[in-house]
Amino acid sequence: MGRATKSYPVVRIKGGNRSGEKDAVVNEGQLTILLNGHKVVTLACTPREEKYLALGFLFSEGIIKGREELRRVSSYPEREEVRVFTKREVRLSSDFLRTAVLTSGCGKGKSFKSLEKMNPLEDILLNFEFSLTPSEILSLMREFDGKSTLFKRTAGVHGAALADRERILLFAEDIGRHNAVDKVLGKALMKRIILKDKLILSSGRISSDLLVKVWRAGVSLVCSRSAPTGKALDLAKNLGVTVVGFARGSRMNVYTYPVRIATPD
Amino acid sequence: MGRATKSYPVVRIKGGNRSGEKDAVVNEGQLTILLNGHKVVTLACTPREEKYLALGFLFSEGIIKGREELRRVSSYPEREEVRVFTKREVRLSSDFLRTAVLTSGCGKGKSFKSLEKMNPLEDILLNFEFSLTPSEILSLMREFDGKSTLFKRTAGVHGAALADRERILLFAEDIGRHNAVDKVLGKALMKRIILKDKLILSSGRISSDLLVKVWRAGVSLVCSRSAPTGKALDLAKNLGVTVVGFARGSRMNVYTYPVRIATPD
Repeated sequence: MGRATKSYPVVRIKGGNRSGEKDAVVNEGQLTILLNGHKVVTLACTPREEKYLALGFLFSEGIIKGREELRRVSSYPEREEVRVFTKREVRLSSDFLRTAVLTSGCGKGKSFKSLEKMNPLEDILLNFEFSLTPSEILSLMREFDGKSTLFKRTAGVHGAALADRERILLFAEDIGRHNAVDKVLGKALMKRIILKDKLILSSGRISSDLLVKVWRAGVSLVCSRSAPTGKALDLAKNLGVTVVGFARGSRMNVYTYPVRIATPD
Repeated sequence: MGRATKSYPVVRIKGGNRSGEKDAVVNEGQLTILLNGHKVVTLACTPREEKYLALGFLFSEGIIKGREELRRVSSYPEREEVRVFTKREVRLSSDFLRTAVLTSGCGKGKSFKSLEKMNPLEDILLNFEFSLTPSEILSLMREFDGKSTLFKRTAGVHGAALADRERILLFAEDIGRHNAVDKVLGKALMKRIILKDKLILSSGRISSDLLVKVWRAGVSLVCSRSAPTGKALDLAKNLGVTVVGFARGSRMNVYTYPVRIATPD
């Protein structure tokens, strides 16, 4: 697997039991694609087969038409770059970047370098008095699943919710998991809901950009029925956010700050 | 549900049976967010609660800090725009767009207006001689599931494959479903594999940008274990691509060009 996964400590909760274990989490890297020396795009991706990703992207976006156009392709994993050179000049439409649409499943990511360098003990501003029990979380997740009417009709959307310890306060669905979270946060803003003693539930993966959205809003706990990425966990550790993954049925994995998950009654 | 879903005809195949039915498919819209008259971003999204999406985006990206900064928020659904005005000027970091990273689950989308206007009967260039049976598809999907080693370890990635009627030829996994497809297409390009008699398998949703990637590569059939969006189906119809969704166990839904799915032997 190499650079594609990383091992993280996790507190596994199943029924009334807790155990400290290790979990393989998928890595989230970046790749900048340069064409004849000019930057085309930076993608968040799994750091593996970068050359193929670069060529496939240029091909499937209609920038190169075939292999015969290629002169040289070089991968620089340590710089997170692939440099593609073609035999003839390729005209990149000047509005290639300007007309970009952030597509479904997509937030407006940044590299978060400054956030990654924060000292976890010095800079954490989030609320550490907020906590809830595993059974409260699992009961919220059941309520969450029941609310997904658009998902039930189409199986094509993600859901997000804002909840307190007892119930779901706001809920939204969207083809993009970041959009669903943004809709919930926008609604909370309009309704002047205090966020620091609330949690966010999501049906989708917890990636670095989603984690940062939650943290910027001042929410200290995010819970998903699916997996987190390694980069999201690194950031969560530095930013003081509790990440709970795979919360389904009677179990969940607590990846960061299990202090907010109270011992079952 | 209003504008969030749309009804599409579908050929449902289960075991040896085929039936023509209607299926609710999630709509894929766009939203452009303008802040004090300046464009901030265009998102692909579910057309619903656009105001909340705009406010949540500006909030979770750190562009506005709270409700008290807002002067007016107006939604123009027919123009796919939300206009947000603040009491004081908000400085948008000049590199807000320039430093954008396309995040996981994210291709470089465009609006595809010209593709949407194509006449399906005049402009289709894809191969109509390629076809395969439902049992061939389901057997490929089983092989596909068996190959997802990174998914099995982390549950945090999407898979994509290139296959002929008999077996999977190329396979890739990535945190982004578009990246997984691009990796497979890049590999096919390097290995000089002819694409017009192949199909693409994906673990993720078939959205418009993914559909266009497949079509640009000259592949005429895309098959997923999850759902398509309405916009992807509109494009597939115009571009001549067969879309198969929910291909699991003994069943699948054929949304467009069922002519490529041969009657079971």
